[in-house]
Amino acid sequence: MQDEVAEVVANALRGRDVTHVAWVAAGGSNGGFYAAHYFMERECATVSSHMYTSNEFVLAPPAYVDEHTLCVICSMRGTKETCEAARVAKELGAATVALYVNESDLTRICDQKIAYESIALDQSRTERVNSSVALMIAMSLASQVDSYDHYDEAMYAFDVVDGIYRKAFARMQEPAREWAARMAGERTIYVMGSGPAYGSAYIFSICNIEEMLQIDSPTINSCEFFHGPFEVLDATKPVFLLLSVGRCRPADERALRFLRRYGGPNVYVLDGMDLGLGELPQDVREYFNHILFSPILNNVYMRALSAATGKDYMTRRYMWKVEY
Amino acid sequence: MQDEVAEVVANALRGRDVTHVAWVAAGGSNGGFYAAHYFMERECATVSSHMYTSNEFVLAPPAYVDEHTLCVICSMRGTKETCEAARVAKELGAATVALYVNESDLTRICDQKIAYESIALDQSRTERVNSSVALMIAMSLASQVDSYDHYDEAMYAFDVVDGIYRKAFARMQEPAREWAARMAGERTIYVMGSGPAYGSAYIFSICNIEEMLQIDSPTINSCEFFHGPFEVLDATKPVFLLLSVGRCRPADERALRFLRRYGGPNVYVLDGMDLGLGELPQDVREYFNHILFSPILNNVYMRALSAATGKDYMTRRYMWKVEY
Repeated sequence: MQDEVAEVVANALRGRDVTHVAWVAAGGSNGGFYAAHYFMERECATVSSHMYTSNEFVLAPPAYVDEHTLCVICSMRGTKETCEAARVAKELGAATVALYVNESDLTRICDQKIAYESIALDQSRTERVNSSVALMIAMSLASQVDSYDHYDEAMYAFDVVDGIYRKAFARMQEPAREWAARMAGERTIYVMGSGPAYGSAYIFSICNIEEMLQIDSPTINSCEFFHGPFEVLDATKPVFLLLSVGRCRPADERALRFLRRYGGPNVYVLDGMDLGLGELPQDVREYFNHILFSPILNNVYMRALSAATGKDYMTRRYMWKVEY
Repeated sequence: MQDEVAEVVANALRGRDVTHVAWVAAGGSNGGFYAAHYFMERECATVSSHMYTSNEFVLAPPAYVDEHTLCVICSMRGTKETCEAARVAKELGAATVALYVNESDLTRICDQKIAYESIALDQSRTERVNSSVALMIAMSLASQVDSYDHYDEAMYAFDVVDGIYRKAFARMQEPAREWAARMAGERTIYVMGSGPAYGSAYIFSICNIEEMLQIDSPTINSCEFFHGPFEVLDATKPVFLLLSVGRCRPADERALRFLRRYGGPNVYVLDGMDLGLGELPQDVREYFNHILFSPILNNVYMRALSAATGKDYMTRRYMWKVEY
């Protein structure tokens, strides 16, 4: 996978000076780009990184998109507006790479493609899900365009992250069951996170809690919390905080202190250190928050909440059923 | 104001080649930069635009920030982490501009400063609130660095937008009262918007509904709605949709069709055309969505909801009361 990604990036760079990378997708696939985008902004000064939900990219494409832009576009099965975004990117001259599970117009339109494995399936390998492949693209891009001093450690981290996930998957079953038992019957669950874990918080809200279980779930950035949202906190409010590992951890810790002081027993914290992030090399572990948080949230916490509420997580009101 | 802004931008550009602009603030001030950021991405190919919540900028500053970056940093009264962000930006060599109401460390740290007027006060002029000043900076920057063909029309729009706001303020009182009467007693109100109006949706959620009235309020991008959040919709769910004017309107219209079909009487739509956006020149009106939506939401809809719920909108549990 690492060689495949490095080759795709090398192909995209051949004969073009890439100054921008745009990550384009919808919903969970869009949130799945967050780790790659966060990495690019912190480690690559020469390529500007930007994220878009597909339909905004289609309707009002950024002015900079031209042959110096790499567009990485993700859809599991070829979401209509995401295919359209690929068409727009290509027309504007960008290099295009599709991330996909099933072939579709997306893979037919893009210059290159990389298959990924669905995060929701237990047999999928952690380093092969969409957010991992995107992060690998970002690291490869940074390494080939500038230089990325910790590239080898990062690739080592991809080698071992699946084993770390499997252990965390087993270890978090019981804490997740306890959390879910307490949450059953709640109508709103806030999810908080910051920096490298914010994308995981967003996906947990919109894909797991809202889409799969039909429970309201605002996502709040731990830093923004103190500038508005914290006023909703009382002794009963359900809040799920992702405590990230790395430079933004103090922002999450500040939120946690406040939640512990003014919130009540429905405040829950999931610490990235408890997921095994500390086992990854110091200089790269921050960038793997999303890579461990997201599958644990999807496959342990969401499933536990589904079991506790007695609601099958394949329940849908609209998806697969009506036109939209 | 327009001359003052143009001069500040010219000063920032003197002797430096600006390749990036970073908009840095917390909460409502952060959301207030959305119009400027949206404009930059669509109209200025040569300067990359990025938004950050202050504390993330402090803890994990972007790699690109150096003397080729313009940092525009906003805080009404000198929010602690926003002042710290200004210090970090300055240390990294960026040109710094403070937007402020009261002088503070922020104005002492930054190279330059521009005073703005609070959106919450009826006597403030629409073209002088923080989001207007930021948009004016963006337009001036685009015009001075590249060229912005519609600069004169945009400045004309700033000349007339306050009059348009005053008329909308009067016209929307009754619709807002009706909406608020229906919402009184609801515990969760979704706010939806996209593209140039997304920042207004975010601020309405976190500052008006959550902070001032302590009601839960997830913000959903109209494009992302179909990829998760729409599964929470039923015949009773309260949803407030901003129908933007410009290229992203079809995304909001698609969401509206779905909301009308599967939602119920608690679905509400506020159309930017009803606020008078159609009175602004065709080529620039899209960029003024935020400039009209935000004061109408803050000063008409929020106040109406405050009256209908009998909750003083100066009610706070924590702000001004406890340390955090």
